[in-house]
Amino acid sequence: MASANQILIAVIGAGGVGKCFLSQLQALAARKPSPKLSLCYISTSRKALYNDDYSPINIDNALDALAASSKAPPSLTKVVEYLAAAPAKVVLVDNTSSQDVAELYPLALERGLSIVTPNKKAFSGSYQLWQDIFSAASTSGAKVYHESSVGAGLPVISTLKDLVDTGDSVTKIEGVFSGTMSFLFNSFAPTEGKGGQWSDEVKKAKTLGYTEPDPRDDLNGLDVARKLTILARLAGLPVESPTSFPVQSLIPKELESCTSGDDFLEKLPAFDQQMEDTKAEAEKAGKVVRFVGSIDVAANKVKVGLEMFDRAHPIAALKGSDNIISFYTKRYGNNPLIIQGAGAGGDVTAMGVTSDLIKVLSQIA
Amino acid sequence: MASANQILIAVIGAGGVGKCFLSQLQALAARKPSPKLSLCYISTSRKALYNDDYSPINIDNALDALAASSKAPPSLTKVVEYLAAAPAKVVLVDNTSSQDVAELYPLALERGLSIVTPNKKAFSGSYQLWQDIFSAASTSGAKVYHESSVGAGLPVISTLKDLVDTGDSVTKIEGVFSGTMSFLFNSFAPTEGKGGQWSDEVKKAKTLGYTEPDPRDDLNGLDVARKLTILARLAGLPVESPTSFPVQSLIPKELESCTSGDDFLEKLPAFDQQMEDTKAEAEKAGKVVRFVGSIDVAANKVKVGLEMFDRAHPIAALKGSDNIISFYTKRYGNNPLIIQGAGAGGDVTAMGVTSDLIKVLSQIA
Repeated sequence: MASANQILIAVIGAGGVGKCFLSQLQALAARKPSPKLSLCYISTSRKALYNDDYSPINIDNALDALAASSKAPPSLTKVVEYLAAAPAKVVLVDNTSSQDVAELYPLALERGLSIVTPNKKAFSGSYQLWQDIFSAASTSGAKVYHESSVGAGLPVISTLKDLVDTGDSVTKIEGVFSGTMSFLFNSFAPTEGKGGQWSDEVKKAKTLGYTEPDPRDDLNGLDVARKLTILARLAGLPVESPTSFPVQSLIPKELESCTSGDDFLEKLPAFDQQMEDTKAEAEKAGKVVRFVGSIDVAANKVKVGLEMFDRAHPIAALKGSDNIISFYTKRYGNNPLIIQGAGAGGDVTAMGVTSDLIKVLSQIA
Repeated sequence: MASANQILIAVIGAGGVGKCFLSQLQALAARKPSPKLSLCYISTSRKALYNDDYSPINIDNALDALAASSKAPPSLTKVVEYLAAAPAKVVLVDNTSSQDVAELYPLALERGLSIVTPNKKAFSGSYQLWQDIFSAASTSGAKVYHESSVGAGLPVISTLKDLVDTGDSVTKIEGVFSGTMSFLFNSFAPTEGKGGQWSDEVKKAKTLGYTEPDPRDDLNGLDVARKLTILARLAGLPVESPTSFPVQSLIPKELESCTSGDDFLEKLPAFDQQMEDTKAEAEKAGKVVRFVGSIDVAANKVKVGLEMFDRAHPIAALKGSDNIISFYTKRYGNNPLIIQGAGAGGDVTAMGVTSDLIKVLSQIA
């Protein structure tokens, strides 16, 4: 049986981010003085591990024990019932990118479960879901944190919240929000040197693990559109959905009907000239092309797509798969507050989740 | 009489930062749903305003009422007594840069008062004071936050804490930590163009209000050394004091005995050649000179002074009076997590204080 002054942690998802999170949770739990937390639930889409009396799961070998478990995961509403009936406060850590789990948040928060998650779906889906989530949290007092839903562990969401909460007026947010797009354009159109063929760079990025299994899931711009939706809403714009503003897809129209990512990659070289032309046009103007998102708060305009930047511009000078996010505000004037660094990867994404968890623990303990 | 579920705010200092903070506090208190806070004490070095029964001071005209008050501020220990006897939780906001107030923190925390402050002195003085502060907070459970002690409102301290708390290994911290030094070197040794004479730039910076009243207080490097001391300690190095590591002063030896800032400024042009030589040496190497601080965590080395950077380096490309802070960590690899933007000014400094206050309120409410 869990003791009442412990905070119970329930984890859904044990993939790339989930594994890194568990390792960080292990280190957190082992710290002296020990935070009063214990793991009571962990699941993947196929298996679950939990005890009816909420007694602690050993974090040190939770993954092995989960793999050996013969329990299938209960339905998501059953999971909420189980956690809401616990004799202690509960933080639900959603390390999936599942829409189904995201849609459960209002119910979970209503029942008093706090949530920390890198899952973008809940905050970038319908505006109704966004409102349901924050109104449920506000009514029950449960907390909901999602730093890693934009820029992984980079302090993007927390900084925007601090700006807004302290009464600054955010006028514009601009940046490179995708590690994949960053890597692709830093290689395809570097500030120095010639850069490679577009289709070659896409293939290289996939080989290096910088793209989704199907690279079209990066190239369609939706991932960036989701992140922009979240930031725009935090800045006060009631953005209806990630498809309610202009998003430029880098998938040629003729390849939209490809049956698989491999089929797409095979046919992509035939369309390299389009991207070559864009690169040449930028070069003629002494610039480079980058895939960026921007939010003009005053004009209520959000957009995602290709833009040209001077070679000396911080967005052009980005390295590797780094993200960069610039906040233009009334207080910061002409020179924006800038945050830059790796915006993807298991460890840094889990870092955002763990630091959110630490914040929630400090508030509900 | 204050109601017991209100949190009482006591403010010491009503100068540049203090005034901006009060205006942000006013906006915070007016928000719906209203946070349960009330102002119970405010003082400058000459005047104080408070009621024996802790009944609220109207925030909207607190400055006028303070100016009209006939009360002198009680001794600092009396202030702590007064606040510790309050029938509610108290947050003490220290908007001074006073060493005396800083030395009061251990007592205040011990008595259960939480503290938020931009005052560097408490965290960059003796290592003993640092230890006393955090051990008092840990024993009583009172909170102590000081985001604006480095980089004003930029999320520098919170980011470093998140990195450390989630188990990342910070290997190096490097950057431009002084708005004054940033402005001086961006004008004296710009990446494009020739730049002005050193003494002219110092005079210009003073006229524009970018320096302390006596510019030697910026040029001696101690302000940067204090900030480095704070970050190094947060990264785990037991730095004894801001004078226990190499700090390069830009005050020529011959001018150390000047009787005033004006005397210093008058004699400075005679020493322009030294800085001119440094600039020329950097130029010969295709670089520019900047005044930076760095912490090599593994080697336990902290230093402050002039260094040369490639023109394309983010530190060289800084604009205006911006700060830039790069965190090199195990998780972030070769490309550091970078935070950049205005690191000085009343509004942005107060923003750090207000966001700290919001964090404390969420934890003690």
